[in-house]
Amino acid sequence: QGGQPATTAAAEETWLPSLQTRTPQQGFDLAIGMARRAVRTTQPDVAALKAGRPGYAEDAARLIDVSGVAAAWFATIAAANDYWRE
Amino acid sequence: QGGQPATTAAAEETWLPSLQTRTPQQGFDLAIGMARRAVRTTQPDVAALKAGRPGYAEDAARLIDVSGVAAAWFATIAAANDYWRE
Amino acid sequence: QGGQPATTAAAEETWLPSLQTRTPQQGFDLAIGMARRAVRTTQPDVAALKAGRPGYAEDAARLIDVSGVAAAWFATIAAANDYWRE
Amino acid sequence: QGGQPATTAAAEETWLPSLQTRTPQQGFDLAIGMARRAVRTTQPDVAALKAGRPGYAEDAARLIDVSGVAAAWFATIAAANDYWRE
Amino acid sequence: QGGQPATTAAAEETWLPSLQTRTPQQGFDLAIGMARRAVRTTQPDVAALKAGRPGYAEDAARLIDVSGVAAAWFATIAAANDYWRE
Amino acid sequence: QGGQPATTAAAEETWLPSLQTRTPQQGFDLAIGMARRAVRTTQPDVAALKAGRPGYAEDAARLIDVSGVAAAWFATIAAANDYWRE
Repeated sequence: QGGQPATTAAAEETWLPSLQTRTPQQGFDLAIGMARRAVRTTQPDVAALKAGRPGYAEDAARLIDVSGVAAAWFATIAAANDYWRE
Repeated sequence: QGGQPATTAAAEETWLPSLQTRTPQQGFDLAIGMARRAVRTTQPDVAALKAGRPGYAEDAARLIDVSGVAAAWFATIAAANDYWRE
Repeated sequence: QGGQPATTAAAEETWLPSLQTRTPQQGFDLAIGMARRAVRTTQPDVAALKAGRPGYAEDAARLIDVSGVAAAWFATIAAANDYWRE
Repeated sequence: QGGQPATTAAAEETWLPSLQTRTPQQGFDLAIGMARRAVRTTQPDVAALKAGRPGYAEDAARLIDVSGVAAAWFATIAAANDYWRE
Repeated sequence: QGGQPATTAAAEETWLPSLQTRTPQQGFDLAIGMARRAVRTTQPDVAALKAGRPGYAEDAARLIDVSGVAAAWFATIAAANDYWRE
Repeated sequence: QGGQPATTAAAEETWLPSLQTRTPQQGFDLAIGMARRAVRTTQPDVAALKAGRPGYAEDAARLIDVSGVAAAWFATIAAANDYWRE
């Protein structure tokens, strides 16, 4: 435990309190949310992001890439939830 | 357990009740289904998606990408099912 | 166990009865087979796929991508077989 | 333990003392930090990197790629923290 | 165990008897070998592959991709060898 | 254990004696080193590689790819070191 200081993060809003979700579907939604949050580290202007979406939503290559990125985030969330095994 | 609120998801349909499937082949089908569902988070218009498919189905690069994305979703589903070991 | 219904799959042929293989090399062959099966979810016309192969077989970028996709499928199959440890 | 010599690293600053963080959100921030550090192994000029960011921040393909790379770093950090399970 | 038939493979040469290697470096070499073997499932003409190599060896994007693909194969081989821990 | 012969490797220099490092930062450095070594399996001319670097160091797509490849190598090294947990 420890190693990375907590001071700077304390000044920011908490948007990721946990990787645990109640259901796989909520885990899927969290994966999409984390994928988008990562985009905002490079392009923080949410309005610009939403303005660009109609363009690449027509582009099959981008849509396939989106799914691959979502799968990568979901893999970690699913492991964190022990795959929601009953 | 917990962390992510369940309230918004409760209002949506449940399309992913579980990552468990009876057979590897059903796991494969679920992987394809999740891959497509992730695409719809960006392009919700299913008719537009189906209309675009003949175009990229001729494009080897896109088809190879599709398989890589399916593999990523399948990896998580297979782990969730303990690889359907007997 | 359960979650995903078995009814639709029952009407299809069984092409993936198991992820287990006797040898690593058979696991490699299964990985290639699953990679191609995933392509067919988007381009079901096998004749069209085979017709396109000479074109992209000359394209280094596509060939490298093919290997990356095969690696992703093989990773899951190898884990399912506990890496064929003796 | 051992194998790789510690001598050259001792002369450099320590920027990665640990993969452990207190919260998932700090793990996310560390993932972004490691992703950028890896870029600097090829382009050490931070001013040049920041100068180029407005250009690719408009490019959907690059932004999706950024998210996929962040997911890859986060996967390792999350495993290192046992997913911040309580 | 079982599931996939052994008959067709028995007629082929055995090129992958095991994922186990004595050292990490041999595991690295095996990863490169498997990456190339996967390419040959699509382009079986080794002379054509070698003829094309000088071209893409000048292309930074292809070389970076090669390394990513090698990493994917190596990940599985390293796990199969329990990371050559002593 | 065994399977892959040790004879050819014995004639080469040993550049990867172990995946173990003392610190996460040394593991990061090893990941960069392995990523570059994999490139050299295709382009062995180190002078040519260094000559090409200024070109792609200006290209955001290549730099993002570099980070993704580094993440893939680091994932394996981190697992090999049990994430340098104390």
